[in-house]
Amino acid sequence: MNQTNFASLYAASESRILKELTQYLSFQSISTDPAYDADCRRCAEWLCAEVQKFGFTSRLVETGTKPVLLASRAGKIGKPKVLIYGHYDVQPVDPVSAWQSPPFEAVQRDGRIWARGATDNKGPTFSLLKALEALHQAGHFDVPVTLLIEGEEESGSAGLYKVLPDLAKELEADILLVSDTTTAKQGVPGITMSLRALIGLEVTVKGLSKDLHSGIHGGAVANPATELCRLISSLHNGDGSIAVDGYYEGVKPPSAEELKRIEANPLSLAEYQKQVGVLPLGGETGFSAFVRRGCRPCIDINGFHSGYGGPGGKTIIPAFATAKITSRLVDGQNPLKCLESLVAHLKAQPLRGLELDIQASPPQTHALRVDLSEAHVQRAIAAIKETAGAEPVLLWEGASIPVLGALVKISKAKPLLVGLIQEDDNMHAPDESFSVAHIRQGFLFACQFLGSL
Amino acid sequence: MNQTNFASLYAASESRILKELTQYLSFQSISTDPAYDADCRRCAEWLCAEVQKFGFTSRLVETGTKPVLLASRAGKIGKPKVLIYGHYDVQPVDPVSAWQSPPFEAVQRDGRIWARGATDNKGPTFSLLKALEALHQAGHFDVPVTLLIEGEEESGSAGLYKVLPDLAKELEADILLVSDTTTAKQGVPGITMSLRALIGLEVTVKGLSKDLHSGIHGGAVANPATELCRLISSLHNGDGSIAVDGYYEGVKPPSAEELKRIEANPLSLAEYQKQVGVLPLGGETGFSAFVRRGCRPCIDINGFHSGYGGPGGKTIIPAFATAKITSRLVDGQNPLKCLESLVAHLKAQPLRGLELDIQASPPQTHALRVDLSEAHVQRAIAAIKETAGAEPVLLWEGASIPVLGALVKISKAKPLLVGLIQEDDNMHAPDESFSVAHIRQGFLFACQFLGSL
Repeated sequence: MNQTNFASLYAASESRILKELTQYLSFQSISTDPAYDADCRRCAEWLCAEVQKFGFTSRLVETGTKPVLLASRAGKIGKPKVLIYGHYDVQPVDPVSAWQSPPFEAVQRDGRIWARGATDNKGPTFSLLKALEALHQAGHFDVPVTLLIEGEEESGSAGLYKVLPDLAKELEADILLVSDTTTAKQGVPGITMSLRALIGLEVTVKGLSKDLHSGIHGGAVANPATELCRLISSLHNGDGSIAVDGYYEGVKPPSAEELKRIEANPLSLAEYQKQVGVLPLGGETGFSAFVRRGCRPCIDINGFHSGYGGPGGKTIIPAFATAKITSRLVDGQNPLKCLESLVAHLKAQPLRGLELDIQASPPQTHALRVDLSEAHVQRAIAAIKETAGAEPVLLWEGASIPVLGALVKISKAKPLLVGLIQEDDNMHAPDESFSVAHIRQGFLFACQFLGSL
Repeated sequence: MNQTNFASLYAASESRILKELTQYLSFQSISTDPAYDADCRRCAEWLCAEVQKFGFTSRLVETGTKPVLLASRAGKIGKPKVLIYGHYDVQPVDPVSAWQSPPFEAVQRDGRIWARGATDNKGPTFSLLKALEALHQAGHFDVPVTLLIEGEEESGSAGLYKVLPDLAKELEADILLVSDTTTAKQGVPGITMSLRALIGLEVTVKGLSKDLHSGIHGGAVANPATELCRLISSLHNGDGSIAVDGYYEGVKPPSAEELKRIEANPLSLAEYQKQVGVLPLGGETGFSAFVRRGCRPCIDINGFHSGYGGPGGKTIIPAFATAKITSRLVDGQNPLKCLESLVAHLKAQPLRGLELDIQASPPQTHALRVDLSEAHVQRAIAAIKETAGAEPVLLWEGASIPVLGALVKISKAKPLLVGLIQEDDNMHAPDESFSVAHIRQGFLFACQFLGSL
């Protein structure tokens, strides 16, 4: 079956597909609020029955929190096995008054389907499922596929993490296909080539019995805020590189071809500046902004609080100073080792009589990097060109989807992140929507890509 | 009239003195709250009439806010002129439920008089006034005296600052005598040998359009909190000294005799640690804690706020970071020049695309240092020995009383700060009190000292 046939097939099925998606979107599967536990379960049960309609053996895996949908369908011997990951849970809907139509009653308007979960992640994953259905109906279902659709992505994936080790065998695959990322070009799926891992710690400098009078004690007693500033400053060298011993161990430079693609990011520096307010001049000297965020680790202060912050002044030496620090790591770095080096670095700084308190949890995180030279990546690029008529934008992203790193590790699969989310989809915000054209693109891409394996 | 005679005179007058002080303490002269404006004025009027009873010509100087009491009495030709400064205003009394007796109904209990203002500053200054009365009644009033008692010391002295230039001629004096400081030895007035000047600024690093996602932008866009930490860290060298160009210009080292006295501070480092929670190991290497706070400038962070401070984490690059910074300066430093150097130093630091905003007001501040070798200081030490039977503790303080620096400058007088406040007087707190023995000591000291000039 060729590309044109899938296009006609989609055209003939679109109204039915949208009707079914509307049903999927009607479940109030908000994972963060236990009040919606039953809705989450009903949503998972519905999905579990749906996939059986096109040849999948499916079951709900109990996690103690939200059930995980696990389904599989055999393919031809010798074909690579594909693991598809998605999530059926959604973000809360507050403030509900800000929605133009009720968040769980999907409507079509302006070429879009409007509902909570439309773009994150029910719409994109549903377009993949409908492609599987089409392949099944056309008798072209050649690759073995496993579906893993969880119900807690928006609230930390605790249930999935819990059952992952038990599912290791069943999840083994060659390719991990996920559609939960963005595209920079309307109508053309984007490929996310990297995600960073995330580690975090909370650092407090303390020891004073209370806020002290800064006149009586200034110069005699060390100032916790000043000392914490010094600790934080010690994390970077003058050229913006990270000063923690061994932090860059395992960091791999992008290939020449990757570098070319990274710099082809359609966002100009001027547009970037317009988006964030300043020119992106942070981080290491000698790397472009796109390389820095996509291929280099970074350490950021997410919050720093100490002493008086109200109007006017208060002449105190603050009793303590505390900072929330996170670091993004790239593929090749060892998150636990990085966290330990960071803690050791901070502990090695002199504190002039004050005390250091560091809170950190062992990291459950893995960075992810898609290798541009891999055959399945080249196939995906080709499939996008054929179905969308344009070269996909490849994005080396700096953000983290922690569960994907864990999935790559446990499934031993090579990741492929093909995304269709756009900024104006209002992800996590009121009036979420997903372009109907993007449902079609997701469908066509999946038919083409899976058919090409 | 000798020492013994003044002691008998005090003994004979004590109950009357305490009764009059009780009346002075009954005025609700809270300066920070305009609701007490009329109480402040009644208090000033009462005091204005009181001092006339022992030979003073007095008037209230209108300031637009609280009136200032200005009074003067001639003395013998050739005697040094003494300017006495004090304040009739008091701190607020909240929480009033924490008081054992109503704050404006003074009571005697356990050898103390309990009321708001008892120790700060009605009690100490009243004991000086009663000494003037005694000298007047005994016919021993030899030195010309000017009284300047303001009503806004607790809220910034705005009114006094406003009228000071107009009063310059009237305030000219040889000695500025103030009793609004502490003593480290019960029953023995202390002498405060130094006060530091105070300059302040608020520094904000900004430029981002909003809090940014630290994954998407981390490493690409500079982090305002990290940058502000670096700015603040740049203010000090590794040895704890201030790294701002020219900051130490004019700083004079203590003499050998002063150094001996400074180190004779009765507080041991262990006791200091108990008081503040840590060993006093801040500031410059090579100077003791007491020298650092008494004779050296310092820069302190009073508050630093940026980004998320709630429970858990929030992976953002904060839109801005802001710090409140103050610096204490010692005698010899030029406050305006120091502030300008500090601002120039901060502005000279690279900011990686972010913006720097600095808010500062021109300083209205002067440090103050009493020269141990001056004759009037030696006379005061002798007067304390004679009246209290012990050597006074000399304190090189790090705190600031900005208006005193201004008064020294405008009156051209040499300062003499003889204090009787103790920690357990609960200054600024509920259950404020002043030791009756200290009223006697203040009275006797003043009689002896003024008689010795």
